Amino acid sequence: MKIAIIGVGLIGGSIALKLREKNFGAEFIGIDKSEIHLQEAQELGIIDRFEDFENGVKNADLIITAIPVDATVKILPQVLDLITDKQTVMDTGSTKSGIVEAIKNHPNRKRFVAFHPMWGTENSGPKAAQKESFAGRAAVICDREDSDQDALALVENIAKNLEMHLIYMNADAHDVHTAYISHISHITSYALANTVLEKEREEDTIFQLASSGFSSTVRLAKSHPEMWVPIFKQNKENVLDVLNEHITQLRKFKSALEKENFELLEELIKNANKIRGILK
Amino acid sequence: MKIAIIGVGLIGGSIALKLREKNFGAEFIGIDKSEIHLQEAQELGIIDRFEDFENGVKNADLIITAIPVDATVKILPQVLDLITDKQTVMDTGSTKSGIVEAIKNHPNRKRFVAFHPMWGTENSGPKAAQKESFAGRAAVICDREDSDQDALALVENIAKNLEMHLIYMNADAHDVHTAYISHISHITSYALANTVLEKEREEDTIFQLASSGFSSTVRLAKSHPEMWVPIFKQNKENVLDVLNEHITQLRKFKSALEKENFELLEELIKNANKIRGILK
Repeated sequence: MKIAIIGVGLIGGSIALKLREKNFGAEFIGIDKSEIHLQEAQELGIIDRFEDFENGVKNADLIITAIPVDATVKILPQVLDLITDKQTVMDTGSTKSGIVEAIKNHPNRKRFVAFHPMWGTENSGPKAAQKESFAGRAAVICDREDSDQDALALVENIAKNLEMHLIYMNADAHDVHTAYISHISHITSYALANTVLEKEREEDTIFQLASSGFSSTVRLAKSHPEMWVPIFKQNKENVLDVLNEHITQLRKFKSALEKENFELLEELIKNANKIRGILK
Repeated sequence: MKIAIIGVGLIGGSIALKLREKNFGAEFIGIDKSEIHLQEAQELGIIDRFEDFENGVKNADLIITAIPVDATVKILPQVLDLITDKQTVMDTGSTKSGIVEAIKNHPNRKRFVAFHPMWGTENSGPKAAQKESFAGRAAVICDREDSDQDALALVENIAKNLEMHLIYMNADAHDVHTAYISHISHITSYALANTVLEKEREEDTIFQLASSGFSSTVRLAKSHPEMWVPIFKQNKENVLDVLNEHITQLRKFKSALEKENFELLEELIKNANKIRGILK
């Protein structure tokens, strides 16, 4: 099986590396707007060769998109225009409603499977790819009833080879859940970084003092706007709902502190501690 | 040298384990209001034996307090009442202004060294203690001019044996910096956990979907109120300043999203990315 990866960065590269290790796929073809990334990906053994968009798509049995979600929305109809009913297309995007909406009336819609592997780091590009990235983590398949059985089975097999456990839900539910589980953490982390950068001018002190708690909370603030602006754009309504709730929750801490209501502060913290039972 | 540890939990236990490994200290005496913790600490090899408060303090050359900061404020004057000018006392608290204020006029003030090892986890109790906890991290000594030279030298030697690098600052500056570097991260994390718990009733979905980004951002939300309410209480003014700034920063993200001003959103994220240059 020939596999084309559109976007040979962190996610596309990590998928290719793992599938190659599993001897899944005979040939990996890179497609990317960055010639530098294509060359790096080839040198790193992520892809065997690279092609232009049209030839790359036409020559592959499976096409995996691993590019920002706004670019995915644009490119997916073009990919589906080029394929036959023997080919399968899957994405890896962090939002899903806009993506499935963009192709819902496409005659080849059923050749597409909406896939979201729940993993990422604050780094990007082929050099950031790691073959053990996905093992043990969750992957979501959305709207499986809108995909052909053989296309779905192929993507399920990919997930198995990536050693991920699958969850099925519709695209709208996916976007609500990811707003809570992933998108809000990034906004919080960005805002926290900006808070510290705004007031703490003594950067050297930050660096020296930063404890592991701080580093883990602001780690996500290193994530690139090229990936995240499109996610927030695509999932605007859900992200705003969660952001408003988060600001409300922060105001409760503020109010408890201002009023020196330490019983309330303790209650708020005890409630938050319940996350201990959910997240190991 | 005999060392008394007041509070044989995560921090006190981790210090004792590391010092014992370095053969620093001939005998470790535990003092704790929890008999269960004292027995656990003895079984875990953290302490050799335990004593009541008065005898434990009187029988030690060095007394280390490792208890919540409000308890430290109360107990320190009592510790200083019991000691002679041959003994040294150090704390490990996450806030400092209230602690140094509480003993500023005590005749034995100079036997005390204000110490803050910048490490912690969301766990507590003797079983959470780890001997490699502190290596490579920062420790702060506050108001060193208020301590006797020999007391200061002893605590510096402790820091060296814990393999920490020392930073010196005054207590007020310490409390401003830790509000930014540590305390706000905890409030953010608690509020984020409460946000998710408030709206996401499908706990099973959280657990299944939670990606590594989410786990690292809400990890601190597991931290106990017994430690953190006193910290927020002691450092109320600084924490409120930072919290207000943080809410302002979050509102900028909210406004950019509401107005679909994606250029501003990109700017906010690019600014946050500057943390990359500061935190490796």
